[in-house]
Amino acid sequence: MTSRVREHVKASFAAQSMMATLGARLEQAENGTARIAAPILPSAQQQHGFGHAGLTFAIGDSAAGYAALSLLDPGDEVLTTEMKINLLAPARGDRLEATGRVEKPGRRLMIVTARVEAIEGDTRTPIALLQGTMLPLRC
Amino acid sequence: MTSRVREHVKASFAAQSMMATLGARLEQAENGTARIAAPILPSAQQQHGFGHAGLTFAIGDSAAGYAALSLLDPGDEVLTTEMKINLLAPARGDRLEATGRVEKPGRRLMIVTARVEAIEGDTRTPIALLQGTMLPLRC
Amino acid sequence: MTSRVREHVKASFAAQSMMATLGARLEQAENGTARIAAPILPSAQQQHGFGHAGLTFAIGDSAAGYAALSLLDPGDEVLTTEMKINLLAPARGDRLEATGRVEKPGRRLMIVTARVEAIEGDTRTPIALLQGTMLPLRC
Amino acid sequence: MTSRVREHVKASFAAQSMMATLGARLEQAENGTARIAAPILPSAQQQHGFGHAGLTFAIGDSAAGYAALSLLDPGDEVLTTEMKINLLAPARGDRLEATGRVEKPGRRLMIVTARVEAIEGDTRTPIALLQGTMLPLRC
Repeated sequence: MTSRVREHVKASFAAQSMMATLGARLEQAENGTARIAAPILPSAQQQHGFGHAGLTFAIGDSAAGYAALSLLDPGDEVLTTEMKINLLAPARGDRLEATGRVEKPGRRLMIVTARVEAIEGDTRTPIALLQGTMLPLRC
Repeated sequence: MTSRVREHVKASFAAQSMMATLGARLEQAENGTARIAAPILPSAQQQHGFGHAGLTFAIGDSAAGYAALSLLDPGDEVLTTEMKINLLAPARGDRLEATGRVEKPGRRLMIVTARVEAIEGDTRTPIALLQGTMLPLRC
Repeated sequence: MTSRVREHVKASFAAQSMMATLGARLEQAENGTARIAAPILPSAQQQHGFGHAGLTFAIGDSAAGYAALSLLDPGDEVLTTEMKINLLAPARGDRLEATGRVEKPGRRLMIVTARVEAIEGDTRTPIALLQGTMLPLRC
Repeated sequence: MTSRVREHVKASFAAQSMMATLGARLEQAENGTARIAAPILPSAQQQHGFGHAGLTFAIGDSAAGYAALSLLDPGDEVLTTEMKINLLAPARGDRLEATGRVEKPGRRLMIVTARVEAIEGDTRTPIALLQGTMLPLRC
């Protein structure tokens, strides 16, 4: 990934106000993978005090999207067209980490997956698997 | 739906801090359907200023969940175990409205769908379809 | 739908040997909907004698695909790029009927749904819901 | 896996007439993984002569199901409750191979994935990814 792609990815992430609202940070995005970390803010919980499925979905989907964007040219964009999430365990712990991966890059469609883990001390617990499709919009 | 179920549904929604963060309101929940409305807050956008897919997912998933909860007894709970979303159009407009529906109530699993629309003036545009599974936790 | 589109749809269905193997018939395909009927052949069962999920998927996916094809020009094709199926009840009865529907036609992608029912005498039981994406290949 | 579980898995597979119709063989099933191989029979094709999506789905879903069954007790059963498939490439080649894997075993639900590859000579091409849920029915 060139530094121009890296800048493009960073600027795109910074422009997503939802990521700031969730306290999410883009930790890595290159060569078809990306990693996003987020706390479980008091403002992002479901009715039992665990992280909301919307939080888990948002960072998993975004990790998959930035994995895809890391393979494109500066100025290109990606849109999620569909995403499936299976929730494996409640989102509880110190923070969440989502890792996205391009499974099949394509000219018209990019098939992606993501895995979200909850981290508490030294323990990592998988809490969600995502599988979906990104639509590249080439500039 | 008895008034005790109605109170239970309202209290559950009120306890979800994520819904407050997104400005979402539960407008209706009974007999296996539910409706949630939300603005597109400046804090819930993606990189082009449209509503974030995490917002659309969160209210669609929750509408499906409260549709399921409306069929259960007071004190019961539901958990999303899996959800698929197809995005149809960008989330732009004055506000979003998610309508959830139980397609198949079951003792072990409840199959649900939801539809999310963006509303701008008199125009309603479908922006997402969801299909998934709720796990009832009976008290 | 012109008669040329109708002929194109019929010829495409007839060329799918899998549909003949399953005994499936295309009963209708126009204006963005399609209907396929199939028996539960002794050769298409799972281990308890009900119809195999592969049968239910195959006719549901194909009904969605022909619903999409009915909106295109003669010579165009569609490919399933992704499909989610929720199974609601065992496939048992005299025959299955799958109804596909285009939810959102698009130039690059067509979002589709399908519903599969089992029919026994006068009783129709919904057995599956599908939601997915067709990729139009324009000639 | 005890030999009684192994016998149970084999007997279950043998009872699925759909697998015989597709020429599929269960090559391995233990410790939460399973592998099914199948030719692309002339009777299981779509309109362009490639393997039908119903074939790819059927062996992917079954590989996931037998991966789940391999973790259960003799006499237990599993049912697919939902499955998502992303198709990556046409099913063409000498034969298909589906590998299923339990991602999260659970008392009430088992989350599974599968990958299907087409094999032509020495080349293996991924053609599909599946992600879904098996419902264990304990005897």
